[in-house]
Amino acid sequence: MRKTILLLLLLLSNISIMYLSASQLQNKINLMPYPSSVEMGNGKFRINKEFSVQVNNVSHRLEGVSNRFLMRLSNRTGLFLNNPFIFVNDSITEVDFIINAAERAELELGILESYELVINSNEIRLTSQTDIGAIRGIETLLQLVQSDAEGYYFPNLKIVDSPRFVWRGLLIDVCRHFMPIDVIKRNIDAMAAVKLNVLHLHLSEDQGFRVESLIYPKLHELGSDGFYYTQNQIREIVNYAAERGIRVVPEFDVPGHATAIITAYPELASLPGEYEIERNWGVFDPTLNPIKDETYIFLHNLFSEMAELFPDDYFHIGGDENNGKQWDANPEIQEFMKSNNIKDNHGLQAYFNNKLLVILENLDKKMVGWDEIFSPEMPTNIVIQSWRGKEAMVEAAKKGYKTILSNGYYIDLIQPTDFHYLNDPLPDDIDLTKEEKKYVLGGEATMWAEMISPETIDSRIWPRTAAIAERFWSPQKYNNIEWMYERLEVISLQLEEHGLTHIKNIDMMLRRMTGNHNIQPLKILLSVIEPVKIYKRNQLRKQTQQTPLTRIVDAATPDAESARKFRSLVDRYLKGRSSEIRNVLISMLESWKTNHIKLISIIENSPILYEVKPLSENLFNVSKIGLEILEMVDKNQSPNDVWLANVKSNLELAEQPVAQTELMIVSAIGKLLNIIY
Amino acid sequence: MRKTILLLLLLLSNISIMYLSASQLQNKINLMPYPSSVEMGNGKFRINKEFSVQVNNVSHRLEGVSNRFLMRLSNRTGLFLNNPFIFVNDSITEVDFIINAAERAELELGILESYELVINSNEIRLTSQTDIGAIRGIETLLQLVQSDAEGYYFPNLKIVDSPRFVWRGLLIDVCRHFMPIDVIKRNIDAMAAVKLNVLHLHLSEDQGFRVESLIYPKLHELGSDGFYYTQNQIREIVNYAAERGIRVVPEFDVPGHATAIITAYPELASLPGEYEIERNWGVFDPTLNPIKDETYIFLHNLFSEMAELFPDDYFHIGGDENNGKQWDANPEIQEFMKSNNIKDNHGLQAYFNNKLLVILENLDKKMVGWDEIFSPEMPTNIVIQSWRGKEAMVEAAKKGYKTILSNGYYIDLIQPTDFHYLNDPLPDDIDLTKEEKKYVLGGEATMWAEMISPETIDSRIWPRTAAIAERFWSPQKYNNIEWMYERLEVISLQLEEHGLTHIKNIDMMLRRMTGNHNIQPLKILLSVIEPVKIYKRNQLRKQTQQTPLTRIVDAATPDAESARKFRSLVDRYLKGRSSEIRNVLISMLESWKTNHIKLISIIENSPILYEVKPLSENLFNVSKIGLEILEMVDKNQSPNDVWLANVKSNLELAEQPVAQTELMIVSAIGKLLNIIY
Repeated sequence: MRKTILLLLLLLSNISIMYLSASQLQNKINLMPYPSSVEMGNGKFRINKEFSVQVNNVSHRLEGVSNRFLMRLSNRTGLFLNNPFIFVNDSITEVDFIINAAERAELELGILESYELVINSNEIRLTSQTDIGAIRGIETLLQLVQSDAEGYYFPNLKIVDSPRFVWRGLLIDVCRHFMPIDVIKRNIDAMAAVKLNVLHLHLSEDQGFRVESLIYPKLHELGSDGFYYTQNQIREIVNYAAERGIRVVPEFDVPGHATAIITAYPELASLPGEYEIERNWGVFDPTLNPIKDETYIFLHNLFSEMAELFPDDYFHIGGDENNGKQWDANPEIQEFMKSNNIKDNHGLQAYFNNKLLVILENLDKKMVGWDEIFSPEMPTNIVIQSWRGKEAMVEAAKKGYKTILSNGYYIDLIQPTDFHYLNDPLPDDIDLTKEEKKYVLGGEATMWAEMISPETIDSRIWPRTAAIAERFWSPQKYNNIEWMYERLEVISLQLEEHGLTHIKNIDMMLRRMTGNHNIQPLKILLSVIEPVKIYKRNQLRKQTQQTPLTRIVDAATPDAESARKFRSLVDRYLKGRSSEIRNVLISMLESWKTNHIKLISIIENSPILYEVKPLSENLFNVSKIGLEILEMVDKNQSPNDVWLANVKSNLELAEQPVAQTELMIVSAIGKLLNIIY
Repeated sequence: MRKTILLLLLLLSNISIMYLSASQLQNKINLMPYPSSVEMGNGKFRINKEFSVQVNNVSHRLEGVSNRFLMRLSNRTGLFLNNPFIFVNDSITEVDFIINAAERAELELGILESYELVINSNEIRLTSQTDIGAIRGIETLLQLVQSDAEGYYFPNLKIVDSPRFVWRGLLIDVCRHFMPIDVIKRNIDAMAAVKLNVLHLHLSEDQGFRVESLIYPKLHELGSDGFYYTQNQIREIVNYAAERGIRVVPEFDVPGHATAIITAYPELASLPGEYEIERNWGVFDPTLNPIKDETYIFLHNLFSEMAELFPDDYFHIGGDENNGKQWDANPEIQEFMKSNNIKDNHGLQAYFNNKLLVILENLDKKMVGWDEIFSPEMPTNIVIQSWRGKEAMVEAAKKGYKTILSNGYYIDLIQPTDFHYLNDPLPDDIDLTKEEKKYVLGGEATMWAEMISPETIDSRIWPRTAAIAERFWSPQKYNNIEWMYERLEVISLQLEEHGLTHIKNIDMMLRRMTGNHNIQPLKILLSVIEPVKIYKRNQLRKQTQQTPLTRIVDAATPDAESARKFRSLVDRYLKGRSSEIRNVLISMLESWKTNHIKLISIIENSPILYEVKPLSENLFNVSKIGLEILEMVDKNQSPNDVWLANVKSNLELAEQPVAQTELMIVSAIGKLLNIIY
């Protein structure tokens, strides 16, 4: 069995190489994000235990990254380095790797991140204007470690690199499910590895307020179930990110999404009542009262306290999905609107936002908010984060607002990597002038946390976000899906060195389900299923903040590996009817078909897996159908009506979600069916 | 291939069950530590989504553990519980699981930890005097989750349980290699799961000082490479442990093992000079100067600061391995000894310790130290931690000193679990009276950190320390090795729910070595090798604080699974020549023999694995020899001299360590050879 799989892998990798263009093969170095310019040389720089690093014009930050570079290199190669620490400012004469950064950058939007990396056979030089540029270049170099029979080496080359967009972010929602500080830290390391530069922390929601407040302690005492960051932990996160050249932008979502705040301070609500932390998912009514002075005093004090914790220039006030129900139901608010000529809730929210703007400007902060804060009443010095669609972004940019695109980068929706990868913030056909395009600062992947726990978050963020990072950093021209997936596989493994659990927690979760080490049949099933997409999961089976995230749907990941390769092979088979590909398809189908009986005996011993049984049956049926079709094609047979009717009903059944997951090979079997039908 | 392994596993598990006694089979519940008394009933308490918990006389601590109990139960079973939070103090009338704890205990040595757990078919009752007792009982209940075709259940039973020893500890050395706070937290969770109650943090060493000091900031600034706990993090650790009923005892090792302190404050050394953080492993010269007032002022201030951070009654001053060289070389110290009638360095250290005792007593702390602080000059209100041998413990107890045993529990030395498990602190033949035995408070497993990183520490502590925890908690009579290993396998999987990486990091490390997912042949090798034992690793290849801990020796673990089972099967085969066992042996040997060619192709692509090649060759040769022997036995043949000479030289070669690891099946092959030779 394992032999078959090995053979399959070999075949698959050969096949995918066949489809690479010559120029791609030439540059077959696994970089992600791919640099602006790569010139390959011919020689190799050999990595051995004498390897030494010197840093000139050092910043504390660059010194730390450079020392960690040596540790990471040593960990990957197993080399006992004679010089495990860097040399600073010309302290030695002969050195292998010289890092020259002209200045220490202030960490802010738009700092220079460009660098030049030259690898010769006897020397490596990394040159940049700022220490942050050098930090980006060091990550590139670490992706270039290769090996041959003589040992490890860096290939000779020259890279000149700079980012396409200045705002390259990842949002982590720590409200729906809290994420302990070590989860945040390892994700910061991974962000740095793929050159992201903004961590957007979503800190206040209906389901929780996650920062200790000394001025309003009820926020964390009553609004967090005890799950919050202390102020010292916030400083630790901000500092950890800054040491890696990553800004931290905090979001405190108001006036909607405010149930946790209102649970702590119900007097701030737009309707009187007792409030509790929200446990369900969706859009809820509790909304801050925009006509009370107390609301603005509260926000002034809170934002002042938080502004000190988060030194970044930008401050996110949310502003999304205010359903307006509490405002509609409050006669005083209605009266206020009438007497102030505010014609609707959107106008009232603009009134609210303008008051916040004054608060933030006094704190020297620039306001960021979601699409909904866009309004003619707002000045253009705010930043709009577009989540509802690219049209919203275009409209804002046309009116002179700076924008960040998140629509198309909602990684919580379990869409495949290529969907996000091909979502260009500024595609060629976009309706923006060259000047208007400058208002698009970049984008952010958004990790909303309804359906994730500290155990599963990494597998939702990674490796997909590495491809999104490439979209934000690299030239627009890189759009080859196959090549992206190939590189992604390598980067995914490298990301594990930061303690990320996106690969290793899957086996762990399966072991917990089975209660033992016998998980192989479950892994085979897992390689062809994915969680249902978009917002379907909660519709199929209502989840809350307290329902478990330890079932098969949580172990399943986007881009189910074998299914993706199977679909791609079917497409190729349909083009040329290659017998080589046909044999691979048969092997795959056979392995899935025979998996059923092994899996059933596991399921029977694990009640948490009972829900998986129909899924395994579907895989069995669909694989059997695939094999029958391929045999008919081979023998040039036509199907009879009874068989056809049976097959159609089986395929329809297999298309239905089971255990909130989808079988990702059904469409490809449908394509095969079209050959004979 | 996989089928073969499955078959093997089935056979192995049947065989081991054959060797269980009837009474053990009856109680085939996987508890560790095993309770004082278990009475099995016949029915089952069904766990379903209506499951509810009520806690009476709640402490904040017990409330937290009980709520986490519900979350853990839900995570394991996948059940969407209607009541995901506990009810407190009679707030509902019908409840499934009632927890009654009479009082909140002050966390200190000797608190009552006993509990009674009764599971009937329709109700579960946990009763204890203290909240800590209830917390211990909750961990027992979580180990009792079982399943059948109808779902999950708890078996009906009655458990009455209390610990054998009051001091059940784990020492973690965070100095040789620093361990971030998340490593400490997950290990605290695991300690609680197996009812350990003391976390001993070794915080000061030649290689690092690991706590922020506000009074002496150079300690962490110059003595830690930036790797230290802030005071807030220390409070976080202490609080996290206390919430789980675990005391934290800090150790600041003086007057030896003090290079990091002396690096920061060289004026405290016994000889003038410039000092640097030590990077090597061993015993080093820098020692505090015992005749300077400044030394005692420093220690008074430092201990006062640290005593506030660590609220426990006990405070560990180390005191071990002072080589005395600096004292011998300092004429003033020699003069002082003469004029004060101190006859040797041991006496001088007693003088030093007596000064510390005054400092600690003023701080209301009780002194703990290693064997070396034992001296006629010291009063008997100190606690001796015995590391050099049980004789030292006996001697101390006879003189009326309280003692803790660590000798025999040095888990850094990579000895098998059964070695530690059978090391009873008070074996039947110990030379102590009943009264003297009371001075033995318990024991501590010691996780010294020369050869571990945050990535590998869990695989060195767990699961072995669960068996040590049983030795400290359970009645002395439980000594069945096979049964211990069986339960250990189950507990090991359960421990993963706390985020422990002892299982999942191994595959990750192998993926990093190979650079891809193809690790199966490497795993097969790994299942028969172990790191070299005791202090051999550093002798074979000198390591330092900066050399990598990412090679095959670091992925290898104690108790190599397949090798252990193979050795056990060979022993049984030798007794009865069972053909069933013979077939299993042949399958195992075949799988190891055929592994070689697959592994070689992986090794050739991974320079970090080059060192593994001779190891794989040895496994190939030894397996081949084993197969040849079994064939000869079968055919009743005798070996010829050429074959014999060749075999002997091959076995001798295979006994030599390779890549700092040992092949753990060689001795068993030698036993097989004895059949025909």
